[in-house]
Amino acid sequence: MTDFLAPLDGSAQDTATQLRPKFNEDGLIAAIAQDATTHEVLMLAWMNAEALAATVETGQATYWSRSRGQLWRKGETSGHTQAVEQIRVDCDQDAILLTVTQTGGACHTGARSCFYRSVHTNGTYTLQQDE
Amino acid sequence: MTDFLAPLDGSAQDTATQLRPKFNEDGLIAAIAQDATTHEVLMLAWMNAEALAATVETGQATYWSRSRGQLWRKGETSGHTQAVEQIRVDCDQDAILLTVTQTGGACHTGARSCFYRSVHTNGTYTLQQDE
Repeated sequence: MTDFLAPLDGSAQDTATQLRPKFNEDGLIAAIAQDATTHEVLMLAWMNAEALAATVETGQATYWSRSRGQLWRKGETSGHTQAVEQIRVDCDQDAILLTVTQTGGACHTGARSCFYRSVHTNGTYTLQQDE
Repeated sequence: MTDFLAPLDGSAQDTATQLRPKFNEDGLIAAIAQDATTHEVLMLAWMNAEALAATVETGQATYWSRSRGQLWRKGETSGHTQAVEQIRVDCDQDAILLTVTQTGGACHTGARSCFYRSVHTNGTYTLQQDE
């Protein structure tokens, strides 16, 4: 299941043809979820090896909840699931990009995307919420 | 310059109207760069408070290079700059989303996006590079 935990035998990450994610010192890798249709960036969450494997195997976005310290299948309580269309990895394999079909809002606030505020540079860095 | 380092006075991060980014234990926050035109997710990098302030003030994406341990104005050597169109922050203020006009490739490999490989779930998690 977690073949990708094996060492990479010295190959450069950016040309590797094997998935060998670089988990951080907490055993986690950042995962971005992007809406497959609107291309909106929905959220940034974290995966451990088990979450990544579960995402690949079930096709449902599964993260590691740092606050709860447990595996978190997105939408398991809210119903706001993410069906995974594609999984990408970046050049140095320390970030994951999921293209997903989002049911309901991705954000716990009910917003479609967690990035619902933009920064206004008026000296005090106030935030402006989307309409 | 770094007003956003002040405490948040107990307000909830997800309804705050002030930018109060939650930097991690290394003083960093994850920053996603997305192409303003194509909506392609280009890269994930890291910012410290100084990098975020420089990004806001100059309108040029500026990160913290964890490998080099220094401020890194994107494109300062490659010329592949990122002009920032919008800066967004997520619900709990521990991730930044930049909408950028990318000059050249965002990736050090020359690729437009760092996410140029997708995962094929054939049991060994091989990667397939974009055409």
